[in-house]
Amino acid sequence: MTLKTLEWKNNSVVMIDQTKLPNELVFVEYSDYNDVARAIKTLVVRGAPAIGVSGAFGMALAALQSKATTNEELIEDLEKAKKVLFETRPTAVNLAWGLERIMEVARKGNDVSEIKDSIIQTAKKMADKDVETNMKIGKYGVELFDNNDTVMTHCNAGALATVAYGTALGVIRAIKESGKHVKVLATETRPVMQGSRLTAFELKHDGIDVSLIPDTAVGYAMAKDLVKKVIVGADRILRTGHGFNKIGTYQIALLAKEHGIPFYVAAPLSTFDMKSEPDDVIIEQREASEVTTIGDKKIAPDNIDVLNPAFDMTPPELVTGIITEAGVARPPYEESIQKLFGSSL
Amino acid sequence: MTLKTLEWKNNSVVMIDQTKLPNELVFVEYSDYNDVARAIKTLVVRGAPAIGVSGAFGMALAALQSKATTNEELIEDLEKAKKVLFETRPTAVNLAWGLERIMEVARKGNDVSEIKDSIIQTAKKMADKDVETNMKIGKYGVELFDNNDTVMTHCNAGALATVAYGTALGVIRAIKESGKHVKVLATETRPVMQGSRLTAFELKHDGIDVSLIPDTAVGYAMAKDLVKKVIVGADRILRTGHGFNKIGTYQIALLAKEHGIPFYVAAPLSTFDMKSEPDDVIIEQREASEVTTIGDKKIAPDNIDVLNPAFDMTPPELVTGIITEAGVARPPYEESIQKLFGSSL
Repeated sequence: MTLKTLEWKNNSVVMIDQTKLPNELVFVEYSDYNDVARAIKTLVVRGAPAIGVSGAFGMALAALQSKATTNEELIEDLEKAKKVLFETRPTAVNLAWGLERIMEVARKGNDVSEIKDSIIQTAKKMADKDVETNMKIGKYGVELFDNNDTVMTHCNAGALATVAYGTALGVIRAIKESGKHVKVLATETRPVMQGSRLTAFELKHDGIDVSLIPDTAVGYAMAKDLVKKVIVGADRILRTGHGFNKIGTYQIALLAKEHGIPFYVAAPLSTFDMKSEPDDVIIEQREASEVTTIGDKKIAPDNIDVLNPAFDMTPPELVTGIITEAGVARPPYEESIQKLFGSSL
Repeated sequence: MTLKTLEWKNNSVVMIDQTKLPNELVFVEYSDYNDVARAIKTLVVRGAPAIGVSGAFGMALAALQSKATTNEELIEDLEKAKKVLFETRPTAVNLAWGLERIMEVARKGNDVSEIKDSIIQTAKKMADKDVETNMKIGKYGVELFDNNDTVMTHCNAGALATVAYGTALGVIRAIKESGKHVKVLATETRPVMQGSRLTAFELKHDGIDVSLIPDTAVGYAMAKDLVKKVIVGADRILRTGHGFNKIGTYQIALLAKEHGIPFYVAAPLSTFDMKSEPDDVIIEQREASEVTTIGDKKIAPDNIDVLNPAFDMTPPELVTGIITEAGVARPPYEESIQKLFGSSL
């Protein structure tokens, strides 16, 4: 059985506590949207599609928690919750997308009870849709890979970054399901170590051949011809094809280009931000303690200055293709991305 | 006071236990060469020049430990010790160099007592020479840097990688001593974290402006124009200019090239291996546990496959200059390196 990262169950949200992985597989249950916001902030749940659906589930909890007697009061409560949930992570666009989808539904309802019900139904549908979308991404992605490819991936764009199945790792699962053999080289992904803690865990859980490398060994592995292709997820993709993803993605893309290795991005259309320019996107800067400590262990001197950006930007000229549920976009991206949106309407 | 990494004191070797840094500054004392070998293997002492001198001190201990009554017996005991010490780390050339220097001295002595004495004197001189050499490297290096440069460094080529002062960080110290302001961006250097544990520690100890970044943020920092120059040490440099250094160096050099950032290597002439070809050099593969655990904390699933090379190779076309105690070599390296050796004779 593949992992179910988050789920709506008996009017509450159940999710895997990813901060406990790989040592313990623990599920947590929330019935207060403030707890969901805290879970997003502290990386109990992470990954752009997963926090998009978590945001929607958070809004569903906010609806249930609301004591409103009129539509206007309910909308007001929901706007408050939306703000709290939105401010947890500024870079991934799926969160804003998930919250906005719920607000649209809320604005259309006839009365408080109908609005609450349709919010819950919409959030649940978004979760189901996420899995369907990932399966479609996998279907398009599998065509780009050959039997016995060794594929490098960074961070975790897997089941644990989505509701289930995954985007980049969904493609890996689809390759395996197609009968081709695939070997994964997972980067640790400092500082939060989503590669060693999550990607290595979930691929091993599913019986997929995976090896771990330090982030410093990417160039070595490419120079030694140990990498045939790279596939990563994305937290935001602009209409120009500029991709925002976990810190370290940009340098892997540049190294791949220099070694003649195809570099693919796998992401649902909900990851696309068709309005912003590259400079508009806020790169979240996270706490120094993520770099200076691991658990209780201090690994750097006290009061050291730290630069800890959570994301970086990969320019389109480094990207071989973007795999979505509507097909694969290829350069020039401005055209091909626009076309994908046309075909999905 | 700058740090003294290792020292000969009352017929024993005193060194900083670098595995305890940055949390505790602890000195350990050895009077058995086997303990020195273990210290090299387990990274109590590391850094190419430091393990070169440690090897020589180890040989001095072996001489003192020897019960030999004839020169031949003593040479035999020394050859045994040399083998044990040599097998600790295969990539850095300074260790072989330090051990061989001692053997040369041993072969020239007239009797057991004279040999023992001259070995100890030679090893002590090598330690003093190391500091002098680093000061000269600093003197040549400082010319290549401007006031207010932000300089990226990888791993620790500092006081802690040498007897004192450092090679790459010796240049940083020389820049500061020259009255120019310098800011250092230190990479963590996974998996052993010499950047966060050692470089950040020793620069802070000396009041030099230093910030820490994850290895994944190198490309980000360069793209954001936060890096003016890069300087690193080396564990082995070939006559062609190919450099072997801490894993991650190669990708930093390639990223620097792509961003138009000068990339310098600082190393003493004892780091040069004028005989080997690139493919001859053994890249040490270290234990998986360096990647899967930090202290007692497990950060990856059980029994995960790990690729953990300790070094990588940077080709000469990525290197702007190699700073030695005899001057700065520039491309084409085959010529300029040869010239440095000529001038130092």
